[in-house]
This record gives sequence, structure tokens and C-alpha cells, in this order.
Amino acid sequence: MSDVFVDPAVTTGPIAGSAKVYREIEGMRVPFRRVHLTNGEHLDLYDTSGPYTDAGAVIDLQRGLPPRPGVIRDRGTQLQRARAGEITAEMAFIAAREGVPAESVRDEVARGRAVIPANHNHPEAEPMIIGKAFAVKVNANIGNSAVTSSIGEEVDKMVWATRWGADTIMDLSTGRDIHLTREWLLRNSPVPVGTVPMYQALEKVDGDPTELSWDVYRDTVIEQCEQGVDYMTVHAGVLLRHIPLTVDRVTGIVSRGGSIMAAWCLAHHRESFLYSHFEELCDILAQYDVTFSLGDGLRPGSIADANDAAQFAELRTLGELTKIAKAHGVQVMIEGPGHVPMHKIVENVRLEEELCEEAPFYTLGPLATDIAPAYDHITSAIGAAIIAQAGTAMLCYVTPKEHLGLPNRKDVKDGVIAYKIAAHAADLAKGHPGAQQRDDALSTARFEFRWEDQFNLSLDPDTAREFHDETLPAAPAKTAHFCSMCGPKFCSMRITQDVREAMAAKSREFFEHGSQVYLPVMPS
Amino acid sequence: MSDVFVDPAVTTGPIAGSAKVYREIEGMRVPFRRVHLTNGEHLDLYDTSGPYTDAGAVIDLQRGLPPRPGVIRDRGTQLQRARAGEITAEMAFIAAREGVPAESVRDEVARGRAVIPANHNHPEAEPMIIGKAFAVKVNANIGNSAVTSSIGEEVDKMVWATRWGADTIMDLSTGRDIHLTREWLLRNSPVPVGTVPMYQALEKVDGDPTELSWDVYRDTVIEQCEQGVDYMTVHAGVLLRHIPLTVDRVTGIVSRGGSIMAAWCLAHHRESFLYSHFEELCDILAQYDVTFSLGDGLRPGSIADANDAAQFAELRTLGELTKIAKAHGVQVMIEGPGHVPMHKIVENVRLEEELCEEAPFYTLGPLATDIAPAYDHITSAIGAAIIAQAGTAMLCYVTPKEHLGLPNRKDVKDGVIAYKIAAHAADLAKGHPGAQQRDDALSTARFEFRWEDQFNLSLDPDTAREFHDETLPAAPAKTAHFCSMCGPKFCSMRITQDVREAMAAKSREFFEHGSQVYLPVMPS
Repeated sequence: MSDVFVDPAVTTGPIAGSAKVYREIEGMRVPFRRVHLTNGEHLDLYDTSGPYTDAGAVIDLQRGLPPRPGVIRDRGTQLQRARAGEITAEMAFIAAREGVPAESVRDEVARGRAVIPANHNHPEAEPMIIGKAFAVKVNANIGNSAVTSSIGEEVDKMVWATRWGADTIMDLSTGRDIHLTREWLLRNSPVPVGTVPMYQALEKVDGDPTELSWDVYRDTVIEQCEQGVDYMTVHAGVLLRHIPLTVDRVTGIVSRGGSIMAAWCLAHHRESFLYSHFEELCDILAQYDVTFSLGDGLRPGSIADANDAAQFAELRTLGELTKIAKAHGVQVMIEGPGHVPMHKIVENVRLEEELCEEAPFYTLGPLATDIAPAYDHITSAIGAAIIAQAGTAMLCYVTPKEHLGLPNRKDVKDGVIAYKIAAHAADLAKGHPGAQQRDDALSTARFEFRWEDQFNLSLDPDTAREFHDETLPAAPAKTAHFCSMCGPKFCSMRITQDVREAMAAKSREFFEHGSQVYLPVMPS
Repeated sequence: MSDVFVDPAVTTGPIAGSAKVYREIEGMRVPFRRVHLTNGEHLDLYDTSGPYTDAGAVIDLQRGLPPRPGVIRDRGTQLQRARAGEITAEMAFIAAREGVPAESVRDEVARGRAVIPANHNHPEAEPMIIGKAFAVKVNANIGNSAVTSSIGEEVDKMVWATRWGADTIMDLSTGRDIHLTREWLLRNSPVPVGTVPMYQALEKVDGDPTELSWDVYRDTVIEQCEQGVDYMTVHAGVLLRHIPLTVDRVTGIVSRGGSIMAAWCLAHHRESFLYSHFEELCDILAQYDVTFSLGDGLRPGSIADANDAAQFAELRTLGELTKIAKAHGVQVMIEGPGHVPMHKIVENVRLEEELCEEAPFYTLGPLATDIAPAYDHITSAIGAAIIAQAGTAMLCYVTPKEHLGLPNRKDVKDGVIAYKIAAHAADLAKGHPGAQQRDDALSTARFEFRWEDQFNLSLDPDTAREFHDETLPAAPAKTAHFCSMCGPKFCSMRITQDVREAMAAKSREFFEHGSQVYLPVMPS
């Protein structure tokens, strides 16, 4: 893949208690994680982890994942094909994954309410969809910084993030070897990969924002499109007139891309080249079917700055750009905040839908308070669940390291799990078809003291089992009718089973003697 | 304190970057945690940690904490005194803590919308209030089980939980030495202590629910009132006619107290002695000013069972019991679920307020999904934040060990921090006076690269600092204008400061030359 020696090691093999299965759909193999239960039943779950969790797959990171066959490059974008009434192979694949009719996939894409980020040059990825009519998705940000990490570590994080359920990853590398890191990630990623091309463009001008130009930026975008990046964050909504609106903010501009463009605009006293060259950008992205993720360069970075004039002025501009992109046949999603107190969250979704024609909303959290650095996966999972319930289609995770440092492997997993919780909680609240099956299966296993099934149905079987092992490691404890929380005499579920037996006995008595009603009974 | 040798070790000393300060109010010393900032300012925070975080305090666990002076035992409950128009010493203390007028404390207590759990026999505790007009509170459950833990470990957990912000603790011990464990906790707890007397009563009859009787239960309640328990969970709302409503549930009855009473009712074919003797119970609690926490014995234990007929039938009964308790001058709060999907959460609050005359609602989570054992502090912090925003007054924490085992010291802290986040997020969303000061102070510190201040203003300074140290341990990094997440060239906050300087320069230019407006500028 390159002449720099890189030798990553990643986690492979099935998730505990599960096996990879495929459903054959029109010659395609659509993957699921099948959880085998001890009562002989099984449950099939949406599976983002690619071949890495397939016990039969041979993984060769130096070669990359095998490309899926049948990628069509010359008939335009998924949006254009959906508008033409076509159900693409990607749409059929997605319909099978999501358990919905292929027509609804096509219709949502045609309306611009859903996107399928699938660059023609990234055939290694399994097709997936982002839109509010589908399961809420989770993105995991990875990538090095000038201070820390390596290509090997980033490939490991990518595989690790998708193992635990990341639906897409973004490579936000800003340190060394940006091109090469991305190449390793793209060739080995089973999920779509997003980037912020500005970061690499800035590296090309040695980190001085004022030296950026449309030419450097355009060339970087083309380079990344050729490599196979599936969606790109473009902060084209940061306009000169918005910048003064940030002056009285507590935390100014907290988007890296936003602050870079603001610095450029002020230095050149001109409107951003992303804005002035937006249509050329559309033409480039359309050639590869790269999806726009219109960045919120002026998102609030603190509770104090939420829903302010700067944020909503930019959102209005993103609405204009959405129309332009769609007119060029380019798929679009819209990025959202950030830091927002709970009572101001829903307004973000309503306004985005109104201004941006219901293009999929893709939010970073939001964090519901600023006061818990080291726990921002939790502060933001609260906001994320609420905003997803209101209609956000994809949630960008926040890890415990947010505001403090670059996330490591453990942080990545903690972030992904917290966001799978938020996404699933929203699916339940939206009544997403089939979402509750997993809750019901797990709770039934819990009630029936099928501990192994409870672990294996959970988001993280390893940790659930490990926690149980801490106090009751012996094998018989995995079928015992209690745990160490309440002990044997105080287990409500065991007592409930006694209660049910007592009621069944009463019921038999009633039918056998046919004489008196025993319920309800008034206080004696 | 007893003849059993117990020698607990607990964590003492100030939280990093903070010092205990007291405000003298009518001869009382009201505690605050003062965070000293590097810019010379400070912020005083609500402080639950008692003398343990006072650098000047001498802690002697064998003797217990010094009692606060002036406890009045012969003039009835806080409710009765509030109704008589009195502002008690406890109310004055609470008003200072919460930063509200003492009259509003009295009025909310008189209306039964707030409670002050303060048994006359627990003078070691610092007065606090639970009610929707005040800051949202957090309870931490501790206590041993038959399988694990000791008195020393439980005392340590109690001090640890209050260090991180637990407003009350519940001793849910069901294992050995229940009386003695509680004695150690009461004498050393700076916060109110709640219990479920049924657990000890059941131990007295060797764990057989059918052997329980009013006499055993009453004697246990009196024993605990005498010791100083501040509030008691009583599952008096589980009636015979409710039990069949649980038969088709996925997880039956998941409250220990609820399942015990259901088993008793069915075995004796009679209405629960808690219900039939409820007025006698009121008379006992009134003597000590012990607060009722009317338990939701039929709370849902899974998403599938949320808001069902059994749950709401019991809530209706709790409404009847609330009226009876208040007629006896006893303070009352109402316990709530459990496991509830997000879209069904608010209904719980509205119904509780309607049926129970707005008595403070005290909920366990709720968990917004069942699928994440080992992460239920997160699944439930989502539900907790939402239910608190809707009006819940106190949140009972859930730890990562929920459903898997008895929480240890680490789990206790993880649970408390997750719930402080949920409670604070709700305070922000409710516009609670002063709540946002802490967010603003922390975010300002963040923007100004005052790293130490950012750590010290956070819920957990130790972990925030530790995470920063992982990649940038050197002292200069604590004032550096970047972190390892983005590195020096990509720090948006640093670039924003450049942007602000550029704007200021433009502004000077404008005033100096007085010639042309530079903003807004249209696209070139």
C-alpha cells in the first residue's frame, strides 16, 4: 500500500456469544450479528463491524478489505439515481440491513431526507444510510494530532470503533502522514469514511490559515475524492458578516474549520473561498458521489453560546447551500451542535428541518452541561438521545477525553457505547420498527436468569460478564437465581416467580372449585 | 459505638483546588465548596461532603460526627411547623444553601411540594430539601448484601458518595449486621439517610416473606426511627388487586419490597399490612419527623413494562396514601420508575403530580433502554435528566453494576458523577437560579486556557487532570494554548483569539479612518 513501514494489529474474531451471518439479497451478502441464546432461539442484530468479526474471514491489513462487486461509477449519484426512480444495489443492501422496503430507501434519498455516503472509489465499505426514517447512526472521530498517535494506532481504533457499533468513522488527522493514514483507513474500513479536507489543506500551507487558497483546497478535495472519502465536512457557511456575531461569546469559535475560515476571511477581507467556489465544489463531489456534510463552523462551544445569533445565521446559510448542492445532484447532510442545554435542543432540529429541507441532521452530542470534563461522553449522550428523538439522523460521538486530549482505544470504545445507548434510546422513543426486540429479549433473559444470554445480548458482553464475575465468578452463578446485588433471599425476580406460581395455583383452585372470586379483595 | 470491632478508613481532605468555607447564618455554619481560580476570582458551590472535606476538621469515625445544635424535638414535623408559618432553623439553613428566600422554603414545605428529611435523632446531618422548586438532588444507594461487603466498606462508600455530591444516601443492606451497619452510617453521615425497613424485617423472619407481620414490621420501623433514619421507603401501595396486573409483564415485579409484599398478600390472601396499618405508621413517623418515601413496588423493570396498568394503579393508591400521611402531618415523597423509554417519561411526572398533590417525585433513573448492562449509569442518566427537567425533585442513582452485582467504591463514584450531570443538566434546563454560573466559569476558563481552573471547576477534578496528564503531563502544558486533541496549529480557541485581535484591529482602523464599513461584505 505504501513504502512506509506500517504494521497495525487489530482486534478480530466474533463478539462474545455472537456469530456473523449473511443474508443473500440479489447476490449480495448482507451481514448481521447473530446472538445465539441458551433457550435455542436467536436474535439477529444490525452489524457494522465488517469482516473483522467473521470467524471465517482472512484479514490482511496490508492488502485491505476485498471490494464489493458491482459498483457503478458512471450513472451519477445515489440522489440522482433515486430521483430517476432507480433502486440501486446499495439501496437494496440497505433495505435488507434496516428491515424496510427498498422503495422507502429510494424515496427518502430522492427527497433528500436521507443520504448514502458511498464514494465510487471506496468499494471496501458496506452501504449504509443516514436519515431520520432509519435507525439512528453513530459516527466515531479518530485521527492523529501533531502531539500524539500513529497510523497503526488509528487503524486499530477504526476497527475497534466499528466492532462496537460505529456506523461511520471520520479521520480527523491533523498531524503527520495525513494522506497515508487516510489510505490505510479507507482500504481497511468496512464503514463510510468522512474527513475535513481543510485540515490537510492547512498542513499543505504549514499551518498558516491566511496562506490557504481555493487552489490548494480544491486539489486536496480532489485528492481525497480519488482516494475514496465518502463524505466531507465543508465549513462553507462561515461568512464575513457572521464573525462579529461571535465576539461576545463565552467560547468564541470552537470549530477548527470554522476558526480557520474566520481567520482567512478577516485576513483577506473577503468572503470565504468555500462559499464563493461552492458550485465548483459541488461539481467535483458529484463526480465521485461524495456527500456534503455542511459543517457548523459557528456551533456553540458552551451552554452560554447555545442557539445564538451566530449559530442560527450560519444555519440559514447552510440552508441556501443545501439547495445549491441538491441542484447539482450532490447528497447533503447538515452538522449541528455542540453544547446546548436540554430545553434548547429541540429548536435546533426544527430550525434545521425548516431551513435545510429536512436534509439529515448530524450533531456532535450536544453536551447538556459544560461542568463535567472527563465525562463528556455522558453529558453529551444525554443531549444526543434527546436530539435524536427529535429527528437527528446521525450522532457524532464524544469521548471521555473531549476537551482534555486525543482519545485512545479505551476512550473510543467508551464513546461508541455511550452513543449506541443514545441512538438506541432514540430508536425506541421514535417507535423504530424492531428496535424493542433487543430490549425485550435481554429483559426476558434477565427475568429468566439466563445470565449468559443477558451478557451476549448487551452492547458490550465482555464488560457485562466481567462485572458479574467480580463477585460471582463461578460457572454455576451464570444460571443462579440471584446476583451479588441483592443476594439469594432478596431477589425480586425470584420472588416474582414464586408469586406467579402462587397465582397460578389460586387460579387452578378457582376453576376447580368454581365458587368464589379471590381478586380483588378489599382491605381487611 | 458498639462492641464489634469495626475500623473503617475513609477519604478526607478538600477536593482538589477547593476549600471548605462556611457562611454564618443565624449562628449556623452553612458549608460551601469554594473553588479558588488562578485569575483571583472564586466560585462557591453547594457542598454535600460534610466535615470530611474540611482541612481543619478532626474526623473520628468511632465517635461519629458532632451533632448540630438546636434540634427541636417537641414541636412536630417540618410540615406541621411550616403550616403554622414557622421558619425553622433547618429552613433557614436550607435557604442559605440554595440561595433562595427562607419564606419560599417554608411555603413549599407547607404545600407538601418539598420535604426536609431530618429525623430529630439524626442531628449529625446537614439540613437539605427535596422539591422541584430547588436544585435537583441525587441519592446514592449503598449497603451490603448476603454475598458481599462489610461495615467498613459501606462507611467508606457513604463518605465517598457524599464527597462527589450525593445529597442523601440509602442504606439498603440486606446481609449481615443490618442494625450495626446503619448505626455506623447514621453517626457518620453528613446527609440524610434513607432505608427500606422491610429488608431488616425480613431478616428477622429468616428471609421468608410469608412469615412477616405488622408487629415485626412496626418494631423494626420504631427501631430505625429511634436510630435516626431520615426517610423510609414503604411499599404500601401494592394491593392484592394490583398483583394480577403484573402477570403478563416481561419482568414481573422488580422491586424487592414490592415482590416481598406481593408474596405476603398472596400467601395470606389478605391486603398488605402496610396498607391496612398505614395510619399507625403515620403516627410513628410523625413523632420523629421521618419522611415517607412511598415506594413504587410495581415499577417497571423493563422497557416493555413501562407505564402499564400495574404501575399506574399503584400510583393511584400512593395518591390516596399521600393524603392520609399529610393529614397526619407527615412529610411525603413518591418513588418512581425504573425502566421507561424516553417518549413515556414525562407522563410519569404529570400523573404523579396530579394524583399525589405534587409531592416530591423521587425516581430511579429511569433507564431509557435495557440493552446496556455495565453502562446503566448512562442509560439511566439519560432518563434521569429528562424526568428531572419535567419536575422530578430527587434522582436515585444507578451504578454501572446495576443488574450485575453489588457496586463497589468505583461504581459508587461513577454513579454519583453520572447523576450529578443529569441533575445539573436539569437545573440548567429549568433555569434554576445560579446553575449556569458554574458552566460559564468553567467554559471561560477553558477559552482562556486556564487548565487548572477548568479541572477544579469540574465535577471530578482528579480525573479531568489525570486525562490531561496522559498526553501532556508537564507543568507548562497546564497553561499552554492547545491540548493533544488538536495540537498547537489546530486549536480553534487559539485561532479565535487571533480572530478577535484581527477584528479589534479592524475596528481601530475603522474609527481611526472613519471612512468605510467593512462588515458585512458580500461574496466577491
